[in-house]
Amino acid sequence: MTTKMAIGAKDIFRNQHRLIRFIEQSIRLCSNQSLKAAQQQQQQQQQLNKTQLDADFSISKSLNSEHWNAVPEPVEHDPDVGQQFYGNQLMVRLASPQQLQPKPDRDEDLIFGKQFTDHMLKIYYHKSLGGWQRPEITPLENLVMHPAAKVLHYAVELFEGMKAYRGVDGKIRIFRPNMNMNRMNLAAKRSGLPTFEGKEFIKCLSRLISIDSEWVPHTQAASLYIRPTLIGIDPTLGVASSDSALLYAILSPVGSYFKSDSSGAVSLLADPSYTRAWPGGVGNRKMGSNYAPTINVQKKADAKGLQQVLWLYGENHDLTEVGTMNIFMFFINDKGEKELITPPLNGLILPGITRDSILALARQWGQFKVTEGTFNMPRVCELLNQGRLLELFGTGTACLVSPINRIHYMNQDLYIPTMEQEKPVHETIRTALTDIQYGKVPHPWAVVIE
Amino acid sequence: MTTKMAIGAKDIFRNQHRLIRFIEQSIRLCSNQSLKAAQQQQQQQQQLNKTQLDADFSISKSLNSEHWNAVPEPVEHDPDVGQQFYGNQLMVRLASPQQLQPKPDRDEDLIFGKQFTDHMLKIYYHKSLGGWQRPEITPLENLVMHPAAKVLHYAVELFEGMKAYRGVDGKIRIFRPNMNMNRMNLAAKRSGLPTFEGKEFIKCLSRLISIDSEWVPHTQAASLYIRPTLIGIDPTLGVASSDSALLYAILSPVGSYFKSDSSGAVSLLADPSYTRAWPGGVGNRKMGSNYAPTINVQKKADAKGLQQVLWLYGENHDLTEVGTMNIFMFFINDKGEKELITPPLNGLILPGITRDSILALARQWGQFKVTEGTFNMPRVCELLNQGRLLELFGTGTACLVSPINRIHYMNQDLYIPTMEQEKPVHETIRTALTDIQYGKVPHPWAVVIE
Repeated sequence: MTTKMAIGAKDIFRNQHRLIRFIEQSIRLCSNQSLKAAQQQQQQQQQLNKTQLDADFSISKSLNSEHWNAVPEPVEHDPDVGQQFYGNQLMVRLASPQQLQPKPDRDEDLIFGKQFTDHMLKIYYHKSLGGWQRPEITPLENLVMHPAAKVLHYAVELFEGMKAYRGVDGKIRIFRPNMNMNRMNLAAKRSGLPTFEGKEFIKCLSRLISIDSEWVPHTQAASLYIRPTLIGIDPTLGVASSDSALLYAILSPVGSYFKSDSSGAVSLLADPSYTRAWPGGVGNRKMGSNYAPTINVQKKADAKGLQQVLWLYGENHDLTEVGTMNIFMFFINDKGEKELITPPLNGLILPGITRDSILALARQWGQFKVTEGTFNMPRVCELLNQGRLLELFGTGTACLVSPINRIHYMNQDLYIPTMEQEKPVHETIRTALTDIQYGKVPHPWAVVIE
Repeated sequence: MTTKMAIGAKDIFRNQHRLIRFIEQSIRLCSNQSLKAAQQQQQQQQQLNKTQLDADFSISKSLNSEHWNAVPEPVEHDPDVGQQFYGNQLMVRLASPQQLQPKPDRDEDLIFGKQFTDHMLKIYYHKSLGGWQRPEITPLENLVMHPAAKVLHYAVELFEGMKAYRGVDGKIRIFRPNMNMNRMNLAAKRSGLPTFEGKEFIKCLSRLISIDSEWVPHTQAASLYIRPTLIGIDPTLGVASSDSALLYAILSPVGSYFKSDSSGAVSLLADPSYTRAWPGGVGNRKMGSNYAPTINVQKKADAKGLQQVLWLYGENHDLTEVGTMNIFMFFINDKGEKELITPPLNGLILPGITRDSILALARQWGQFKVTEGTFNMPRVCELLNQGRLLELFGTGTACLVSPINRIHYMNQDLYIPTMEQEKPVHETIRTALTDIQYGKVPHPWAVVIE
């Protein structure tokens, strides 16, 4: 009975949004039925949820529930979202020999997001047809859409970035997919797009990766980038929620994301006249609208021979993000301790999955202080002048860890000694993460694709 | 000679970006040639520009150059944009009888942006093919694009809103198209998309409207909405400028834009926890990325039975925009004078063409003070309490003038007496603008489509 209770608690944790809905229904029921009857029904429902989940989400078995529920939190579906899709409904239409894509010659030469695999995943949503439709794997093919589709006018679009890694044991792994799914659903809600069951999408995605598994590079210098995308395709010009949507995924074999100098480090333009995100906006959601305004600023960086943009915020020039990455600083604090700091999730910052993983690992190591806190350019300059700034680096799925060696700020070049440390923290972090991702170290974050 | 000089000056004014480029070239030339030779060439070029313009932009004849150059200013093309397109290259592929769209039964019942005409305009840009390609009018048809197209991931997209009006004389007019073209090119530059010659696009658009002229409603209660759109279609996942783009236009017969109550007025949700635009962002550019983040906030307004969102900015709760409109307040100022005020173009505000037209007309009338200045919610409350707030209204191409009768702010309902004035200014403005747009009053702002 104790064991059963324990399973029940775990199950409740995993399915809290379903249960909340059920409890709400129960409360309503109570006005008509006796409390006892409602409790009986609740127990039956819990049992049903458990059975269903165990049967149809094999991936979740390798996930520790405490990780599954890490930030970002799962969202609750709006009551009017309609029917969900399920992995076991998946239809597959394989590419004919003529539809196969040209394979890259050398995995190491891959340019980010230029080549795509033979197949893609598509799931349509039509409110008028009851909600989500059957998921389908098809050959990689062009999308056909009405010229009034909302995605083309009002940026009703969001995406995720994930990767599949071929491990040292030959097995293919993805990294904390639950986090991407939760974040994607949060963005959907913020964009007036339908939410979906993340674990069902991961089941479909796993099948897609299996089908195109020969595209997962056989080297640790490369991986298969996964781009889940959700777009609003209503062919109407009102600025409003989309009653039709397309959730799809394409796969692209990738090498390293950024151009860097020969040392592997990047240089940054820090221009306080441009702002990436602001309070009351959507800087903490992976929506397409966060990216278009950055392109012109990136062009200015390029023109100055700098590789990325360091995004500052406010009068104090707080550091927020770098390019499309979170930012970390490793330094000697006022108490003389070594400290790793990254800006807090205050609404201006994308809740990065690499960011979260680095924080978790570093806290587990316990070798230096780990802080989520605001820091600004004057502080960076001060630490630099006092020889207390040790490392500055960006982090993200595409690049993993990207060391920074120079910041161009207020017509001045600040040289950062990130590459000059004897045993740099960013290298320790990179090794720890790739060891997990490429299966050298068993870890619940790495989910094997069957 | 004096007349010739005068024409030359006007011509210089119209073509300043071309001339600046030419002068730059001239300066370079001067290092090789004598100054005299360069001056001769400059004169020849000016003559050439004048002849070409007169010959190929008949629409510009009806535009007063001082309006053509009103804000927003024309942009200068980047040197690497490549070849431009021209109206005289336009190809036309007419719809077959099976491709014709169903016509609406009653113009008055039209819902905004749900029905489209038989044809559309398409102009592709491919840097690899030298720049802009030949413009083409085709039947209204779905767009086909790669699932990695930048528009679907990074909101590389921008649009304009214009209208064609059937005048009391049966002629079809568009309103200050030069303003839309300048604004569109500014947005293109901000988005890493190619710029184009606005007047050449207007020539193509005029032909499209002529072909679908039977779709321009025969009533002053409706018009033909024009949606020029520019999207980045590069099939690559890097966050960067787009080397391929599609500039297109679709047409939709429309009635009034907003649902309003029986009085014709709208109610607003003013929630300071959401921000539309911010310094260092793109709130002054008509980019798709400004719209997606508003949809969820509009949903919150809907849920409270309110029709639009009033966008506030900063600690003082400055009024910025309402829904997708500029905002105007008519009030009795501290000197006891009547005053019309609208927020200034400080980067947070879309430079509305209706806004600009209202300011110009009201200044010409000289009947009350006209100001571009910041005003906030405490000021609105104060004026309201003292009986000095007369009218509050939104303005924009889609709705023209939209009176406001209620604001829900800080859990309080503020009732605005916009509809209770004896001779309301917003009605005078609406009449003046529609008189121009529907050809009751001849005006250089109204450009007849031949």
